[in-house]
Amino acid sequence: MIRHTVVFTLRHAVGSLKEKSFLRDAEVLGDIPGVTRFERLAQVSGKTKYRFGFSMEFADQDAYESYNGHPIHVKFVEERWLREVDEFMEIDYVPLNLAPL
Amino acid sequence: MIRHTVVFTLRHAVGSLKEKSFLRDAEVLGDIPGVTRFERLAQVSGKTKYRFGFSMEFADQDAYESYNGHPIHVKFVEERWLREVDEFMEIDYVPLNLAPL
Repeated sequence: MIRHTVVFTLRHAVGSLKEKSFLRDAEVLGDIPGVTRFERLAQVSGKTKYRFGFSMEFADQDAYESYNGHPIHVKFVEERWLREVDEFMEIDYVPLNLAPL
Repeated sequence: MIRHTVVFTLRHAVGSLKEKSFLRDAEVLGDIPGVTRFERLAQVSGKTKYRFGFSMEFADQDAYESYNGHPIHVKFVEERWLREVDEFMEIDYVPLNLAPL
């Protein structure tokens, strides 16, 4: 399992229709084959500036790469992400191997 | 639901026994009342420097605050976190309200 997450801010005004539109339209990412547990989240810790997050899981690296190259993802990145996102950070997780010392 | 996550690096050498010990002993956090879905994770994206992550969920803000003040958490922060963690960032998520525009 690979959990792909990204935390970000938007260029849009807080609470604006453009903000809502971006978050709503990102729903298409969850329909890409191989994506499971897709979530759109509000970031609420006052200790970081980021305001939103997406999270999704892939069974393996092949599924992750297939998502990255999928036309829906490529189009979303080109037409929406690059134009509307201000700052972001990607964090990808895999289960930690905690075998005995 | 509030998902509390923290992504971090350790002061220990990569693959060291001290690194393993920290990650193993953090298991006690998952036993604190109110903590659900506790996970210890490896951060694998090359786009950020952080190497590990913890994730847990609380039913509500009261459960989160109870965790923060719980003796097991306070002790872990004082005796392990403050001494062994190098850099970290907290990211807290709640479900996004995507009501119609």
